[in-house]
Amino acid sequence: MVIDGMADRPIKELGYKTPLEAAITPKMDKMAEKGICGIMDPIKPGIRPGSDTSHISILGYDPYEVYTGRGPFEAAGVGVDVLPGDIAFRCNFSTVNNEGIITDRRAGRIRAGTDELAEYINGIKLDEDVQVIFKESTGHRAVLVLRGEGLSDQISDADPKHDGNAPKIVVALDGSEEANKTAEIVNKIVKKSYELLKNHPLNLKRINSGKPPANIIIPRGAGAVPKVQPFGKKYGLKPVCIAETGLIKGIAKIAGMELVDIEGATGGIDTNLENIKKGILETASKDFDFILINVDGADEAGHDGQMDEKVKFIEKVDTVIGEIMELEDVYFILTADHSTPISTMDHTGDPVPIVILGPEIRIDDVKYFNERSVAKGGLCRIRGNNIMDILMDLMNLSIKFGA
Amino acid sequence: MVIDGMADRPIKELGYKTPLEAAITPKMDKMAEKGICGIMDPIKPGIRPGSDTSHISILGYDPYEVYTGRGPFEAAGVGVDVLPGDIAFRCNFSTVNNEGIITDRRAGRIRAGTDELAEYINGIKLDEDVQVIFKESTGHRAVLVLRGEGLSDQISDADPKHDGNAPKIVVALDGSEEANKTAEIVNKIVKKSYELLKNHPLNLKRINSGKPPANIIIPRGAGAVPKVQPFGKKYGLKPVCIAETGLIKGIAKIAGMELVDIEGATGGIDTNLENIKKGILETASKDFDFILINVDGADEAGHDGQMDEKVKFIEKVDTVIGEIMELEDVYFILTADHSTPISTMDHTGDPVPIVILGPEIRIDDVKYFNERSVAKGGLCRIRGNNIMDILMDLMNLSIKFGA
Repeated sequence: MVIDGMADRPIKELGYKTPLEAAITPKMDKMAEKGICGIMDPIKPGIRPGSDTSHISILGYDPYEVYTGRGPFEAAGVGVDVLPGDIAFRCNFSTVNNEGIITDRRAGRIRAGTDELAEYINGIKLDEDVQVIFKESTGHRAVLVLRGEGLSDQISDADPKHDGNAPKIVVALDGSEEANKTAEIVNKIVKKSYELLKNHPLNLKRINSGKPPANIIIPRGAGAVPKVQPFGKKYGLKPVCIAETGLIKGIAKIAGMELVDIEGATGGIDTNLENIKKGILETASKDFDFILINVDGADEAGHDGQMDEKVKFIEKVDTVIGEIMELEDVYFILTADHSTPISTMDHTGDPVPIVILGPEIRIDDVKYFNERSVAKGGLCRIRGNNIMDILMDLMNLSIKFGA
Repeated sequence: MVIDGMADRPIKELGYKTPLEAAITPKMDKMAEKGICGIMDPIKPGIRPGSDTSHISILGYDPYEVYTGRGPFEAAGVGVDVLPGDIAFRCNFSTVNNEGIITDRRAGRIRAGTDELAEYINGIKLDEDVQVIFKESTGHRAVLVLRGEGLSDQISDADPKHDGNAPKIVVALDGSEEANKTAEIVNKIVKKSYELLKNHPLNLKRINSGKPPANIIIPRGAGAVPKVQPFGKKYGLKPVCIAETGLIKGIAKIAGMELVDIEGATGGIDTNLENIKKGILETASKDFDFILINVDGADEAGHDGQMDEKVKFIEKVDTVIGEIMELEDVYFILTADHSTPISTMDHTGDPVPIVILGPEIRIDDVKYFNERSVAKGGLCRIRGNNIMDILMDLMNLSIKFGA
């Protein structure tokens, strides 16, 4: 169970405690008391992880090898069945005027109807051999996936980053034939999207009511979908993921995990933790060997610099821990994927606390679950990519190296 | 701030305390109390570091990749502007008799006038394409640098290691054309140095007063100057180094750091720590982002097996820590580059204590700065090459890996 961005630095307003230290968390503390604790560097000491690279590492993959950018995971997360080698992009629905100038990169932060717009783009034929997959995401966001032989992610962005510019002509970054071909297709898609969307009924309606039309799509951040050994095969465990955000769902999906959708899981501090708890307990009762859980609210509060909300959210998470702790014959690991300090409002490379609960654990004498007290625990300082090896070993499922 | 060789092993005569544990160090203890502590393996657990390889690691470079021997760093440290690819040697001024037999490898431990002798060697032309740079170091020591195309450091030493032998004929170790060419040049230099130095006025004077003449130079330890990304570029910090010994100065110089010379900094236990402190405070007030400080006396005492002197020197260092601690908006890291135990009189691979002081640190409850108490600190056990990543992250200057 990864409490996204939960770890922090000492804050003056909290009497130089961290939010996790300030929060009243009797269940987490009980976990610390009954488990083995330590600090963990999700990637390496001092390295600032993304949520994606950290989860990749925690699941036992090497992010320096697997991570090709956010595009592939976002695409998988919104439900595109990506395949290794697919080139995936994050996109915006934007507004261009008659002169081809982008007047609003987010198309008035359009919230509804992008599924209808996406249908006009999805499946268009621009090249005999290349399949174009396009799907809406949240708000003005969408994903584009190109599938076919001879493609490359070594291309530039169409996104000019600021309003008042035309979409950028996408070019090959490495001069290769594959990149040239891919760039050409993306340029065609941008152009074609305007032709297809400008007179879309939804856009005509938006124009009529004075809203900027979502009449072009602007791709960025090309990334090739990595070839990843399915988690289930890598460890011989049947895995499932309970997550809130597309990014984490996408990682789970690319790792071949099943996904459980939770009603009311918003990824914010307002998420329905009661439903998440029910989902966890129900999933645990089924035929799975491994559940990856990610709860995102603490990270959101950290990014927004909301100290009190972060403390409160951690306390809210604590209330759902108790019943999960009581699951029998289960190893339960509680940790974070990185620190998102209130002071920096972004991820930092500070280590995160970790506790492992379960049969035959070498219980240490740590009594409180927070960044500092766990540093005296029996795990000392480990890395994210140690977790699966440790877990497999505790479960007596790993193969002996040697005689 | 690296206190060279400060760490040690428990000593019976000190009631099984280490010199750092026995020393009265209120300022260092204050640092421990206000900072986050841990133990550090400069390279890897149990690996015995040199001062050079340890500093290379601490500065964030991989010594297994960068380190080609001591020659390049010594040469840079005595002020030769070495370039990547240069072949650098450590040399002795020695004494040979008329039969070409070395009668004194250290030329009577000559102390003065080697600069005049060096002038006779520096710049000699033996090969059209190869520049010969030669410079005196301390005592009977000197450095030789060969610059040109098609050279190699895969050659043997001219130094026969013991008096009573002729200089060894230098040969290629790998049979390559480059090594053959380099060996030939070095053999010519050894021969030519005798011709140039035997009748040098200084040597005639030495002979007259019954001293062995410094009439030949004997190179050893060929090493190619490594190509190192400048520290300032690697981290985006403007760096400067305050060090006493040529070796550390050379590392700093090859890493592209500025050097600050301190009057009275001898590198021994008699060094002028007051001047070093002033130099640090003055440098800190200037336009630098990073100061590497190395103080060498504790290492010297360790190599000489002088227990009481080591304890006293550590106490002397302690008195200069206080003012440095009070610098504002500064991360101050105190550590050692290796242990130099009194018992072994050489470097060992025991981990060294480390403390980090500065804003937003997760202060732990360690109260004393010594090898054993810091092991319970919040850093747990890190490696030398984690330091820069941790520091960059604390300063919020590192780039996030992922999203």
